[in-house]
Amino acid sequence: MTVNVGVIGVGMIGKDHIRRLTTVLAGAAVTAVTDVNLDEAKRVAGSVPGGATAHGTGQELIDDRAVDAVVVCSWGPTHEEYVLAAIAASKPVFCEKPLATTQAACRRIIDAEVAFGRRLVQVGYMRRYDAAYRALKAVIDSGDIGTPTMLHSTHRNPSVPGHYTREMAITDTAVHDIDVSRWLLGDEIIGVRVFKPRKNSLGGELEDPLFILLEMAGGALVDIETNVNIRYGYDIRGEVVGETGTASLGAGGPVTLRRNNLVADEVPADWRERFIGAYDVEFQEWIDAVRDGGTFGPSSWDGYAAAVVSDAAVEALHSGERVAVDLGDQPDLYA
Amino acid sequence: MTVNVGVIGVGMIGKDHIRRLTTVLAGAAVTAVTDVNLDEAKRVAGSVPGGATAHGTGQELIDDRAVDAVVVCSWGPTHEEYVLAAIAASKPVFCEKPLATTQAACRRIIDAEVAFGRRLVQVGYMRRYDAAYRALKAVIDSGDIGTPTMLHSTHRNPSVPGHYTREMAITDTAVHDIDVSRWLLGDEIIGVRVFKPRKNSLGGELEDPLFILLEMAGGALVDIETNVNIRYGYDIRGEVVGETGTASLGAGGPVTLRRNNLVADEVPADWRERFIGAYDVEFQEWIDAVRDGGTFGPSSWDGYAAAVVSDAAVEALHSGERVAVDLGDQPDLYA
Amino acid sequence: MTVNVGVIGVGMIGKDHIRRLTTVLAGAAVTAVTDVNLDEAKRVAGSVPGGATAHGTGQELIDDRAVDAVVVCSWGPTHEEYVLAAIAASKPVFCEKPLATTQAACRRIIDAEVAFGRRLVQVGYMRRYDAAYRALKAVIDSGDIGTPTMLHSTHRNPSVPGHYTREMAITDTAVHDIDVSRWLLGDEIIGVRVFKPRKNSLGGELEDPLFILLEMAGGALVDIETNVNIRYGYDIRGEVVGETGTASLGAGGPVTLRRNNLVADEVPADWRERFIGAYDVEFQEWIDAVRDGGTFGPSSWDGYAAAVVSDAAVEALHSGERVAVDLGDQPDLYA
Amino acid sequence: MTVNVGVIGVGMIGKDHIRRLTTVLAGAAVTAVTDVNLDEAKRVAGSVPGGATAHGTGQELIDDRAVDAVVVCSWGPTHEEYVLAAIAASKPVFCEKPLATTQAACRRIIDAEVAFGRRLVQVGYMRRYDAAYRALKAVIDSGDIGTPTMLHSTHRNPSVPGHYTREMAITDTAVHDIDVSRWLLGDEIIGVRVFKPRKNSLGGELEDPLFILLEMAGGALVDIETNVNIRYGYDIRGEVVGETGTASLGAGGPVTLRRNNLVADEVPADWRERFIGAYDVEFQEWIDAVRDGGTFGPSSWDGYAAAVVSDAAVEALHSGERVAVDLGDQPDLYA
Ligand SMILES: [Mg+2]
Ligand SMILES: [Mg+2]
Ligand SMILES: [Mg+2]
Ligand SMILES: [Mg+2]
Repeated sequence: MTVNVGVIGVGMIGKDHIRRLTTVLAGAAVTAVTDVNLDEAKRVAGSVPGGATAHGTGQELIDDRAVDAVVVCSWGPTHEEYVLAAIAASKPVFCEKPLATTQAACRRIIDAEVAFGRRLVQVGYMRRYDAAYRALKAVIDSGDIGTPTMLHSTHRNPSVPGHYTREMAITDTAVHDIDVSRWLLGDEIIGVRVFKPRKNSLGGELEDPLFILLEMAGGALVDIETNVNIRYGYDIRGEVVGETGTASLGAGGPVTLRRNNLVADEVPADWRERFIGAYDVEFQEWIDAVRDGGTFGPSSWDGYAAAVVSDAAVEALHSGERVAVDLGDQPDLYA
Repeated sequence: MTVNVGVIGVGMIGKDHIRRLTTVLAGAAVTAVTDVNLDEAKRVAGSVPGGATAHGTGQELIDDRAVDAVVVCSWGPTHEEYVLAAIAASKPVFCEKPLATTQAACRRIIDAEVAFGRRLVQVGYMRRYDAAYRALKAVIDSGDIGTPTMLHSTHRNPSVPGHYTREMAITDTAVHDIDVSRWLLGDEIIGVRVFKPRKNSLGGELEDPLFILLEMAGGALVDIETNVNIRYGYDIRGEVVGETGTASLGAGGPVTLRRNNLVADEVPADWRERFIGAYDVEFQEWIDAVRDGGTFGPSSWDGYAAAVVSDAAVEALHSGERVAVDLGDQPDLYA
Repeated sequence: MTVNVGVIGVGMIGKDHIRRLTTVLAGAAVTAVTDVNLDEAKRVAGSVPGGATAHGTGQELIDDRAVDAVVVCSWGPTHEEYVLAAIAASKPVFCEKPLATTQAACRRIIDAEVAFGRRLVQVGYMRRYDAAYRALKAVIDSGDIGTPTMLHSTHRNPSVPGHYTREMAITDTAVHDIDVSRWLLGDEIIGVRVFKPRKNSLGGELEDPLFILLEMAGGALVDIETNVNIRYGYDIRGEVVGETGTASLGAGGPVTLRRNNLVADEVPADWRERFIGAYDVEFQEWIDAVRDGGTFGPSSWDGYAAAVVSDAAVEALHSGERVAVDLGDQPDLYA
Repeated sequence: MTVNVGVIGVGMIGKDHIRRLTTVLAGAAVTAVTDVNLDEAKRVAGSVPGGATAHGTGQELIDDRAVDAVVVCSWGPTHEEYVLAAIAASKPVFCEKPLATTQAACRRIIDAEVAFGRRLVQVGYMRRYDAAYRALKAVIDSGDIGTPTMLHSTHRNPSVPGHYTREMAITDTAVHDIDVSRWLLGDEIIGVRVFKPRKNSLGGELEDPLFILLEMAGGALVDIETNVNIRYGYDIRGEVVGETGTASLGAGGPVTLRRNNLVADEVPADWRERFIGAYDVEFQEWIDAVRDGGTFGPSSWDGYAAAVVSDAAVEALHSGERVAVDLGDQPDLYA
């Protein structure tokens, strides 16, 4: 029932995925780890809930019978080797982007997976899992705005580290916009141009911002703004322009639609749609508190207060008058 | 490490919590269930991942040594009995609202818990776990808008079932607003009034909408609009008015601030803040696909396409010219 | 063709109305003024475009045959006398609020006007002329949100002068909300309550904010928040709650509608709707520049540049290539 | 004091400008008109408030001593002749766009105006007078978002007439975006490219939308989307991207700022800023009603009602109780 995962690479991202697999999500355990730094792998293995084996190499980890599926978070140039090994072992493998660092390496992975005859590889393009992007794709697929003719994609960072290069604005930054362009429009890219607007002086010598145009096979035109020293925040925006309207990413929320003389956001249909996420948080925190002896949420006192006030409000409804509320003293337990 | 949960009541809400505990959240298992309808309890027990015991009574379930913690989702009038039994058994208990159906019953629970000397009871006021409400509380507690003087709370439903009464507008609907008033303002209610605006004809004879005023001990005034036949959607809004500004619930997202001559929403500080939820979804869906043999997300082909387009874009950056992109034929595996 | 206006009271508001009548609007001239401070009246008369007579009393001004219509901007307690005199002289009179300072005085004006048999009096409730309020009223009257059941009205000021009293929160501040309640809902008020939320410490001893409830004859309930020390800005908001949706004042712009599962703003239907105001500003500034020898707007150089760039763009459209643009040197005249 | 204007061309635009000059704005009169259709010119002349002379030719109109300034609204190919004639007559001339239909003609006008030594010509680029564009320019000039690096400009129309060509998307549509690019950025254009996204099928054979890139001399990059069959409305948007933030056109209102981790709209500083436009409308409608015997706005009854309700509210403030309001019968005059 539980999926046993082996994690290759326990740097910042690897550790975060281990945390996620063991303390956030249902149905998974981390049973093995490895890292180029074996001591670090051993230390992490010791801290994994339930314990995990620290392997000396990725191949050993992949061969471990206690590993059902592999997560690759190591340095990019090692991705090809581990992904190919996982395919050879017939094990599902989640590979952080990039899949590999060269086109030829990507092709070798594709060939191996096609030869295997079933998909085993997933690449870490996580925007496809973002609620706003998914809502955007749903609007496109619904046909509500007609066939897309353009996509405006904006990718802004407050700042970047000193080793960031102009090529990284494409390979590390715009690569996300490139992936969502293909996914949102359901189409391949057939041409690309890059323009260099006036340089942002806050980026020093860096060629920043960039303005990238993608031509899709079906004719749609995509423009991508990358702006990685803009200070004011991390701002991801996207607007798909259709024949009869447009749809934009909301701010971490629902899509904004321009249609029928309105610019509109959706109102939820019911409480489930609005608050379903809150229920998940409520119960996860309760489970964690039960297990760790932590603090609980709304208390008996809260339940009591709600009862007293509700009764008073019903009385006020009936009488039309002000009704006083007196809860009495609160026990220290609930302070 | 795993918290074993017993669930009393396997109606719609009970089933949803079982689903949540077993397929969404980390660290929990459902090991026992019971219901006034024992056959239904048995059927649900059989479908729980890992299997669960179906008990004949709530007391038996609470006494089960395989139960670490109890969730009460049964009919309101039974809550007191089960919560008191859980306290007697020294087991944490999560009780769906209401805690109990009378003030006296709530008091008996408080007395038992105080006598026990440690909190065991949590009541299901889930708005406190909603991201927007939490962001709203964080603004209040930061002091950024000064001491609160008012809270405007709006609770709108498209429609309600035929058995809904005007008292339920208070005890089932506004009770959520009552709880968040106490929680957001960190204060108790000392008086209440209920006003009856013009009746909404879509609610037939129902006294709807209502307009409720709550006086807080510290002087703040709360108004609550309940409107349960307003058709256009489920719309929950809240604005806390402070001495120097106000803060409002965003639409399922961040807070809207009125301060310093601006009405403003926050921009995320970094990608983690913006996309952290997407990573959780990404991995949960991957685990589910690994376990169930379902469809994976972004493919090797997607990784390859990103590599090819990125390379082309880097070339375009260097040359200043259009660069053609040709991916070759896509293997059927990725269609 | 031109309406000759006499202005009683040349304080701040009177001067502003004279400016408006003579330099902003079409079809009016100011031919006479008066003030309790005769010297000031004379000074203002001398500066009016075209010149104006300074009268010693309001009655003289009203009797002046060169006065077609009267504007009353004097101190409130004098309003009744001047409005009654204007009615006696059969002249239209625009009276700044309040119409008079007592109910009995208002009644006397009504009696005189009714006896005259035709409307002559207009009171300065200017919110009825605000584009956003008008759009709000249009939505209500369209029936798009059903019969109104509530109106939430918010009136916030950053600060008030030291002589401001809690009664003025009603008579000077909320009186605007009272007027728009009657106007928007097309209904009279039959009951009123005033609540006192926690005092804003920034207002010192002032009883501020207030929360006012109005009962309309047709059953709708109006709540008005006045908050006159809230620092962050001047914020006027209003939401009419109907049976099937709500409509809110936009920020100086169009109405925000909540209807059919959307929260939406209207998109203009055409350029006329979007830019009609700009044409007015464009021509008024041109007229003023012609008359006063001031600076003109877009120049021949701008027209030339547009022609050159347009030609280049058409060439680029045809060729698919970049087309260079060279305007040559700009003459100093256009610097 | 009054500027006497002669209007050349009394088609739709000419008539609208005559209406504006005579019934909306202060300080102008229309004293002469002409048109290629002399009968129409005579008819219009007869309907101008105060009367106007109908001239047989533009030259006669320009030479008319009763004409202080000229407005050119005739067919584009005639613009050069009339503008040059106005310059020769030393009269200010407002010329609807385009200034002239060829670059050479524009140059001849510039040469004549430079030879005259003072500006006489203004071209009808009215976006520079739009409140939102002006607010946008003010933000740029304030330095609040740093030096601009990009401008995204969007120009959408619901539909266009059948004779509309792809060249007109540039010369009639994008020419506005071209002008505001130069004006907002205070810079000249040095290069231009035009891209053709997937064709919108609603435009039939028309090459629509277009995507235009402008290179500014200072390095900033401008992109313009024209989309003239998009059905959902007339939507003009613009975002200036600076080094530390961005500023966008609001929807007919104030600017939206992205700065310091906020996306924010400004709140007015005071009532004057919020309602100044309403005062203008209020008085213009009152003047028109006085002159034409039309209906007045807020009545004595409204002033009386405000007084009665205010008194009741003050009493309610003092007593803390509900106070009933009774206005008595409303005279028919105010029905
Ligand atoms: Mg990633
Ligand atoms: Mg609940
Ligand atoms: Mg006023
Ligand atoms: Mg124009």
